[in-house]
Amino acid sequence: MLHNSHSLTRLVGELKKLPGIGEKSACRLAFHLLRSPANIIALAEALNEVKSRVRFCSVCFSITEDDPCAICRGNRDDSIICVVEEPQDVLAIERSGAFRGKYHVLHGVLSPLSGITPADLKIAQLLERVSNSSIKEVVIATNFSVEGEATAIYLTGLFRNHGVRVTRLAHGIPIGSDLEYIDSATMQRAVQGRSEV
Amino acid sequence: MLHNSHSLTRLVGELKKLPGIGEKSACRLAFHLLRSPANIIALAEALNEVKSRVRFCSVCFSITEDDPCAICRGNRDDSIICVVEEPQDVLAIERSGAFRGKYHVLHGVLSPLSGITPADLKIAQLLERVSNSSIKEVVIATNFSVEGEATAIYLTGLFRNHGVRVTRLAHGIPIGSDLEYIDSATMQRAVQGRSEV
Repeated sequence: MLHNSHSLTRLVGELKKLPGIGEKSACRLAFHLLRSPANIIALAEALNEVKSRVRFCSVCFSITEDDPCAICRGNRDDSIICVVEEPQDVLAIERSGAFRGKYHVLHGVLSPLSGITPADLKIAQLLERVSNSSIKEVVIATNFSVEGEATAIYLTGLFRNHGVRVTRLAHGIPIGSDLEYIDSATMQRAVQGRSEV
Repeated sequence: MLHNSHSLTRLVGELKKLPGIGEKSACRLAFHLLRSPANIIALAEALNEVKSRVRFCSVCFSITEDDPCAICRGNRDDSIICVVEEPQDVLAIERSGAFRGKYHVLHGVLSPLSGITPADLKIAQLLERVSNSSIKEVVIATNFSVEGEATAIYLTGLFRNHGVRVTRLAHGIPIGSDLEYIDSATMQRAVQGRSEV
């Protein structure tokens, strides 16, 4: 309904494609940008820069500007590899500072209903990395969703005869949560996975 | 914390400047864009197009691609002018279809606390329009906020000796709402029920 500006209508249309942004939010963002021309230019430039500079690492398939990425080039433990769904999962694990090995990004999870098969993920490349190097442990860090769990089970099967240890991130109660509000599935896993103190 | 990509960090920084978008949303949007290169280009192009094409109408200061805007050029009632805070308010009133006159966008409201005085708004230009033309009625359609009401009172005082009728959109619009988000039916009642101040 931005009848008097085709280009503004187009911008609203593009903003609406973003996750969590509907018609009204898109309008609001567009008018906000319109009030600050410097921000429009800066955002357009940042988008173009990301488009031209950011690529996927040819080793781990995480995002990077230099190939291979800093983690693959860096002085990290070569014997342990953490398998995640998406590049942002690498950042989440890096923020914890608890993992000193390398990563492998699958770029999705197995989902037969959506037609996503092992060939659509970076699974062949993962197998190649594990076969050709000194990797001793594969930590599967897919999400705890139905698809994530299915992918974890599939990968565990693949590595069964590769002589590597396959582990999964611990299920349990998040730090800072009240026991009272923990869902029963998480509580079940927390009880099953209890450890000696 | 996107340590491995300067340009992605920059994009997240730009997205965070948008209203209602924090660090996590910005990251989510950036990674979403990263997965669809075509959308990155389309959004960057739309931004550049808006920057280069959209300007303010030299008559009413609403947004337009051609100056003067379609409403100012169009076959509308020249004797009545509706004064609004922002360009998006013009769209909100146009959607109701109840107003057939012309518009004047102030680009803000009086706000002594934020240092916004009459000189910062398009008030001189409004006075000039009213003085030099056949305008018989000024409809003040600022928001029903403290600043909007103060601006309405200020404008009413200015026009007292200009021989024009000064009206205000009817209450019927819920107090505290932004004009931008009013449904068309309520907006229609508000235009029809405008009253003498």
